[in-house]
Amino acid sequence: MNTAQYRWPNGKKVGVIVSIDFDGEVPYLWRTRKSPPVGIGDLEQRRFGPRQGIYRMLELFKLWEIRASFFIPGLIADKYPNAVEKIAEGGHEIGLHGYRHERVDEIDAAEMEETLQRARASIERIAGQRDMGYRSPSWEMTDYAFQVLHRLDVLYDSSLMGSDHPYWAEGFPEIPVQWLLDDAIFYRYSGPPSSPRNPGDVVDLWRREFEGLKRWNGLFLVTMHPWISGRASRLQAVEVLIEQMKQDPDVWWTTCGEVADYHRKTYADEFHEKVSYDIE
Amino acid sequence: MNTAQYRWPNGKKVGVIVSIDFDGEVPYLWRTRKSPPVGIGDLEQRRFGPRQGIYRMLELFKLWEIRASFFIPGLIADKYPNAVEKIAEGGHEIGLHGYRHERVDEIDAAEMEETLQRARASIERIAGQRDMGYRSPSWEMTDYAFQVLHRLDVLYDSSLMGSDHPYWAEGFPEIPVQWLLDDAIFYRYSGPPSSPRNPGDVVDLWRREFEGLKRWNGLFLVTMHPWISGRASRLQAVEVLIEQMKQDPDVWWTTCGEVADYHRKTYADEFHEKVSYDIE
Amino acid sequence: MNTAQYRWPNGKKVGVIVSIDFDGEVPYLWRTRKSPPVGIGDLEQRRFGPRQGIYRMLELFKLWEIRASFFIPGLIADKYPNAVEKIAEGGHEIGLHGYRHERVDEIDAAEMEETLQRARASIERIAGQRDMGYRSPSWEMTDYAFQVLHRLDVLYDSSLMGSDHPYWAEGFPEIPVQWLLDDAIFYRYSGPPSSPRNPGDVVDLWRREFEGLKRWNGLFLVTMHPWISGRASRLQAVEVLIEQMKQDPDVWWTTCGEVADYHRKTYADEFHEKVSYDIE
Amino acid sequence: MNTAQYRWPNGKKVGVIVSIDFDGEVPYLWRTRKSPPVGIGDLEQRRFGPRQGIYRMLELFKLWEIRASFFIPGLIADKYPNAVEKIAEGGHEIGLHGYRHERVDEIDAAEMEETLQRARASIERIAGQRDMGYRSPSWEMTDYAFQVLHRLDVLYDSSLMGSDHPYWAEGFPEIPVQWLLDDAIFYRYSGPPSSPRNPGDVVDLWRREFEGLKRWNGLFLVTMHPWISGRASRLQAVEVLIEQMKQDPDVWWTTCGEVADYHRKTYADEFHEKVSYDIE
Repeated sequence: MNTAQYRWPNGKKVGVIVSIDFDGEVPYLWRTRKSPPVGIGDLEQRRFGPRQGIYRMLELFKLWEIRASFFIPGLIADKYPNAVEKIAEGGHEIGLHGYRHERVDEIDAAEMEETLQRARASIERIAGQRDMGYRSPSWEMTDYAFQVLHRLDVLYDSSLMGSDHPYWAEGFPEIPVQWLLDDAIFYRYSGPPSSPRNPGDVVDLWRREFEGLKRWNGLFLVTMHPWISGRASRLQAVEVLIEQMKQDPDVWWTTCGEVADYHRKTYADEFHEKVSYDIE
Repeated sequence: MNTAQYRWPNGKKVGVIVSIDFDGEVPYLWRTRKSPPVGIGDLEQRRFGPRQGIYRMLELFKLWEIRASFFIPGLIADKYPNAVEKIAEGGHEIGLHGYRHERVDEIDAAEMEETLQRARASIERIAGQRDMGYRSPSWEMTDYAFQVLHRLDVLYDSSLMGSDHPYWAEGFPEIPVQWLLDDAIFYRYSGPPSSPRNPGDVVDLWRREFEGLKRWNGLFLVTMHPWISGRASRLQAVEVLIEQMKQDPDVWWTTCGEVADYHRKTYADEFHEKVSYDIE
Repeated sequence: MNTAQYRWPNGKKVGVIVSIDFDGEVPYLWRTRKSPPVGIGDLEQRRFGPRQGIYRMLELFKLWEIRASFFIPGLIADKYPNAVEKIAEGGHEIGLHGYRHERVDEIDAAEMEETLQRARASIERIAGQRDMGYRSPSWEMTDYAFQVLHRLDVLYDSSLMGSDHPYWAEGFPEIPVQWLLDDAIFYRYSGPPSSPRNPGDVVDLWRREFEGLKRWNGLFLVTMHPWISGRASRLQAVEVLIEQMKQDPDVWWTTCGEVADYHRKTYADEFHEKVSYDIE
Repeated sequence: MNTAQYRWPNGKKVGVIVSIDFDGEVPYLWRTRKSPPVGIGDLEQRRFGPRQGIYRMLELFKLWEIRASFFIPGLIADKYPNAVEKIAEGGHEIGLHGYRHERVDEIDAAEMEETLQRARASIERIAGQRDMGYRSPSWEMTDYAFQVLHRLDVLYDSSLMGSDHPYWAEGFPEIPVQWLLDDAIFYRYSGPPSSPRNPGDVVDLWRREFEGLKRWNGLFLVTMHPWISGRASRLQAVEVLIEQMKQDPDVWWTTCGEVADYHRKTYADEFHEKVSYDIE
């Protein structure tokens, strides 16, 4: 039995994608929309992302020669157009991520379609891109959300965890995420009893997953947020892993969009999974 | 005072069992049965188990020459018969684990009996096994649950933590579990403020417990879930511990079923414990 | 300014006490008394203490030549008289700890007095001791609880954290505990999102506190529970620290009772603190 | 793109401030003011700060030759005037921190103004200081809180996280804090499932942030509480980092007040940020 079944181009053993969910304060605004708090501490904490974190990341991606995949809520584009321009100028991929970071299981199909169109218009105006993939806010999906993505001719989805290599989900190439490779669950302070993990520990954990995915021909798709991983110690810690992976001849450095194309062409008849809810 | 009182066969100092609770999405379906959510993120995360994790584990058990003890909800057998066939072909033990992973303290005796009969029928049809042991979903037990196990002629129970060697619980050999040797409580991301532990840390903790159990003649019974420990970095981490234990002459590599047989024959008159609830 | 102000006998730099809160399933019975659950998983987990953990601890205390301070709910004495006899035979100190591990802020003075008298009668019948110190269940105290202790001629209190050397609290020598030196908060699995810490990490943390307390002439009073620290890996980890401390000439190995006597004789006029609740 | 844009005096690469939120039991009194509990365990735990922790810190600051920035609720000054005198005598900065540690989003502008005036009067009476900066209790701010600070001629604010170098917030130099460099979220035991982190781990994390901030010309502003970091092992752990930073020629050892002055003079026209709540 050989369970390392996915084949990457040119004999590579692992795909590596650096993805950025450029959320800033937008998810907080969405969550608190019905009763905006008078306190601004959380807002300011999150604004560290669009003020500083994003520019440090872009600086380092240039230094490391990385094209990353950015998923950007439309409201971030409208509030911080300079940052989005810089992302586009850097040659990075830009994908959809809602307008106000709306969780798809908290809105209906019409609302989702309206918010995605609004987000696409904002991004297109600033960055000149129209054909994009999609990552759902909070990594949640529904049956009707996939239908909306079809109506909008979205290129792929990158929101689910059902495999650690690309697969088909409701007719879309699914470029899978996973909690293990998310920065927020390790670093975000969400009130007691949480406390941020040591970046050395987190990056060691990521390195272990990278080594394991190389063994099983998986996709190493790490997700970072500028307001979280833009902090100095975290960037420096992940830099060590990136340097190691940059020297590894088994790595295919790529983007979500490229992987979706590759999957569509190479595996049109394989890895189709039914992902909807069925009790029996 | 010598507190290392249990004797293993052939002068071995510690029993080692690798047990797999093959749950996948079934516990989630049970928990959400009254109001199924529209979101499918959790489902997909859990389906990683029956899609990929289980096959990787079987591959490694073959490589490591391990017979494991699998506890399988009937619904998993009905949804993923191919995986269960492969488990049986690999020579592993299969045990009962509810039909929909029903917690026994949330159902009554009649419902428990019906669901176990249904699960046994599914497993028997696919894997050809009828005489089986039992591990309760969520490691919870009740007085009436033991009575159901007696009526169904179940071979043993493996759900409680009252000792770290086998003992008698309500007339059954109890093959004890413990939280320390469960993967889920260390690795599962259950929303903020949880965050998965580093596999290096977890396996070091397991190794320490292994060394301690060798000193006190205990049972090292580790429990893993394919959707959790099937992730690449976690499998590679536990592999290091397995390699160490494989070279240790003091280890009896065994299964829950074998240990239950051994205990029944060797300790018929010892280690009887009253396990029911009594206030005074 | 010299803040290392407490003086230990014979020029020692740090007092070391191993204290055991021998609770077993009793706190759980108290907490669930109004609606006893049908599930017995938690009970069995806690019974590991009186079945196995306590005997391992006594074996190791004999091996290490340690006299420990045990705080024992009366109900534990009534349910497990053999264990309490063994503790007394081992020359250890025994102190009061409620009858059913009743939190003093959840009962009134009359109830507290009745339960302590009942507990004292049980312990006296089994272990022959009548003059005892007190440690409150859950390390909570109240003004009226101190009055009850006075009426019962209790020797000292060991429940508060207001200093890291002995002090006076409402007329009693206070032998202070602290969370840092408790096993339960590091090891107990209390449902998601908790997960037990690595014993190597916990004991390193305790060792650091030991080194620091030596610098400031403090009291290193560690508290362990048989159902928690009786697990094999945890006992072996703490054994390493005990071996280190046993070889340290700056340590006064002692018990809560001895320290209370010493404090009463040496510091009758110093370290008096007002500990009651006052808003301004 | 060079994102290390802030310039420190004399070519230094990083500003280092040790700040102390001298809270003791006052936040607890504020939080429980409407229904004071009968239990005194939490109070005593917190009183370790004004009884012991504060004096150890002052001793070490003298040893290390550090001027720290203390933020002191007025009620602490009234209850523990000796400690506040010692702080002033040590040449440390003293700043405002509410009277009863009132969260500004839980009181209105009038109440905030009254409590700050009362706090200032207490501190002036004891320590002779009247011109002070401000750190908000619980690091929360509101629009009207800034207006109150203006009316009281407060020198600066040190409560927000919107950057890791000084910036302008509503007309004040903002000397930014961040969770990563707070002791409480790592060490405080707030009931299950929390557990205090190993000081070695915490200080390693701080050291990493220090190294990173040196790269990006940031402000390393660590915050400690006497009742938390005054514990022996924690003080000894942070001492190692302080020794390292003391030998680093790239460090500007400073205080919040000095940095606010520097920022006001050097960057009057730069780094102005809108920090209030705006949805779109």
